[in-house]
Amino acid sequence: MFLSAEQRAANDLVLGWMREAGMSARLDEIGNCAGRYEGERPGLPCLMLGSHLDTVRDAGKYDGMLGVVTAIECVHALHARGRRLPFAIEVLGFADEEGVRFGATLLGSRALAGTFEAALLDKVDADGIRMRDALARFGLDATRIARAARKREEVLAYAELHIEQGPVLEAEGLPVGVVTAINGANRLQVAIEGEAGHAGTVPMRLRRDALAAGAECVLAVEARCASVADLVGTVGRLTVAPGATNVIPGKASFTIDVRSPRDADRLAAVADLRRAMQEICARRGVGLAVDPTHEGRTAACAPWLREQIGRAIAAEDLPVRELPSGAGHDGMALVDLTDIGMLFVRCKGGISHNPAEAIDLEDVDVSARVFLRFIEGFRPRTA
Amino acid sequence: MFLSAEQRAANDLVLGWMREAGMSARLDEIGNCAGRYEGERPGLPCLMLGSHLDTVRDAGKYDGMLGVVTAIECVHALHARGRRLPFAIEVLGFADEEGVRFGATLLGSRALAGTFEAALLDKVDADGIRMRDALARFGLDATRIARAARKREEVLAYAELHIEQGPVLEAEGLPVGVVTAINGANRLQVAIEGEAGHAGTVPMRLRRDALAAGAECVLAVEARCASVADLVGTVGRLTVAPGATNVIPGKASFTIDVRSPRDADRLAAVADLRRAMQEICARRGVGLAVDPTHEGRTAACAPWLREQIGRAIAAEDLPVRELPSGAGHDGMALVDLTDIGMLFVRCKGGISHNPAEAIDLEDVDVSARVFLRFIEGFRPRTA
Repeated sequence: MFLSAEQRAANDLVLGWMREAGMSARLDEIGNCAGRYEGERPGLPCLMLGSHLDTVRDAGKYDGMLGVVTAIECVHALHARGRRLPFAIEVLGFADEEGVRFGATLLGSRALAGTFEAALLDKVDADGIRMRDALARFGLDATRIARAARKREEVLAYAELHIEQGPVLEAEGLPVGVVTAINGANRLQVAIEGEAGHAGTVPMRLRRDALAAGAECVLAVEARCASVADLVGTVGRLTVAPGATNVIPGKASFTIDVRSPRDADRLAAVADLRRAMQEICARRGVGLAVDPTHEGRTAACAPWLREQIGRAIAAEDLPVRELPSGAGHDGMALVDLTDIGMLFVRCKGGISHNPAEAIDLEDVDVSARVFLRFIEGFRPRTA
Repeated sequence: MFLSAEQRAANDLVLGWMREAGMSARLDEIGNCAGRYEGERPGLPCLMLGSHLDTVRDAGKYDGMLGVVTAIECVHALHARGRRLPFAIEVLGFADEEGVRFGATLLGSRALAGTFEAALLDKVDADGIRMRDALARFGLDATRIARAARKREEVLAYAELHIEQGPVLEAEGLPVGVVTAINGANRLQVAIEGEAGHAGTVPMRLRRDALAAGAECVLAVEARCASVADLVGTVGRLTVAPGATNVIPGKASFTIDVRSPRDADRLAAVADLRRAMQEICARRGVGLAVDPTHEGRTAACAPWLREQIGRAIAAEDLPVRELPSGAGHDGMALVDLTDIGMLFVRCKGGISHNPAEAIDLEDVDVSARVFLRFIEGFRPRTA
């Protein structure tokens, strides 16, 4: 968790590994671990690598950390050979991506991208501690966070290795894949108001059953989102009131989560679903309230970085599979600083945010080889 | 509640009213109020009238009580005119129909019908009190309950006036209706096991969404039950696990309540729904477990009593509307003793088991007139 004793311990480990790998390493103003491996001469613009060091509660071992450790190990491999590249490498271990403590995500990468808003410093954790005070207790100065921001000209690109957290690579028997985009997302809270009644006494034709209307909406979400490639839609929560076996549901409340690597697809789906739910509820004579609770744009991976990552995969004699990322990543913030690219690693059963998160050692090896090959072959974008 | 201080107070009131109406009145062995108005000569078989005096928690004022009070008032009207009929009248105020205290319903009417099982005496209430002890504290002797049972030859029929607890009469602008049958019911507990997953990372085609499967089942219940007259089917409870906005539901659990005045219709619907759910879940690759939690046969109202109640309605210049009872009533137990008939009274919005339960005074008047006319015109079944 951000600014915890465990973060301190993780930082100490990671900064030590960075130095062992030949990097200069420091904690930046928001608590990110930042290691730098100079290029052919000091002060060159950098290829930025990394991922996050924080986790959700009851998490797995690889979400975030694998990307930091692999990046360090790649630098270590260069350092062991005394190899310097025509650009610097910086490895970042971001202090907060998940947003567990203060309910605001991507704090580390937003600080780096210069989009960290000072208002966030007044956010309060579950124990009533303000972020600015938590920073102070950690030895950081909230007034200096803006200094964590990097200049665009100092950074050539950001590349991240991360477990897929989904089942696509496993289903296709592939150890790695190239991310096309970090999906944009909309979340809606939907409330349907029908009329409760006795399950035995109200004829079917006189009912205004909120759950039956909700069930139609659930299937509408599924059907609409299944009709477009890479679009996903989920009703993850649904509650019924009063919720008794012998009472017709008077109220049904549920969430809708829609994501796509293409903003136009996502926005069209959300608009269609709103219309579909209006039609369903009007036909059934039940009330409908739709409350948008979140909207985030797509963070596209740069075609030139996708191409270079794909070339590194092909050079390992592997098929180049491109796929979107349904989960969020630090790249969503860093896209405001520089072009981003991501390499996904197969994980078991698509399971993540769970102690059962698992990967094969062979996949770690293959993905590290691909990532190192990408780094060694990296060519900055030609203007 | 059964055997409570409130029941004692209600019994005292009701027994007093019975005596004021010209009846001999006593508490029977299970705690029912029993009043008797002799016919043209003492000891004739009786027309039994009544309803229940207990309520659910947070209930309305009319469910049960209206039938007891109206029956007493009808006898009072006969008594005021010194009118004796060629049969006796007994009015019952049943001690427990709802089953709130011990989780077993129809205790009063089952005792009367001779179907009260001694094993029920060991049932325990929420405070750990056994029914036999609660009876003793109330001044009743559990070993004597069998004496509450009536002989078939002593009873000509049972007729009950009750609020509809549904919206049919109100929707058709009618103050009263004749009940055709007290619906049989099946209750099922259904569990669907799919696979939880990240709402952003699992493509639609790789999902095994338990809620989407459940939504199809909800709509199957609705469609199947809407296709047959008087059949009703309800999914009143539905829960989703893990139940997070960004997690595909791995489990969905719900109840199904199916009722019909015709057992064949009900059983066919339950069988069809089981098949439909199997098809839905097999197609979606999710697990299905269906657990029957209740099954009760239909208690048909005797055609000859329906005819006599209908004639009394017609004599008040009202249309004769026949309708099933979706809710349970004491007649479900008394059908083992004698033929049963019921007169329904319109109630507001079909609302019952709720303090908002309401009826119009005019409807009370009309229904009492119909009920008295039925009593005065009553002719025992011709063998």
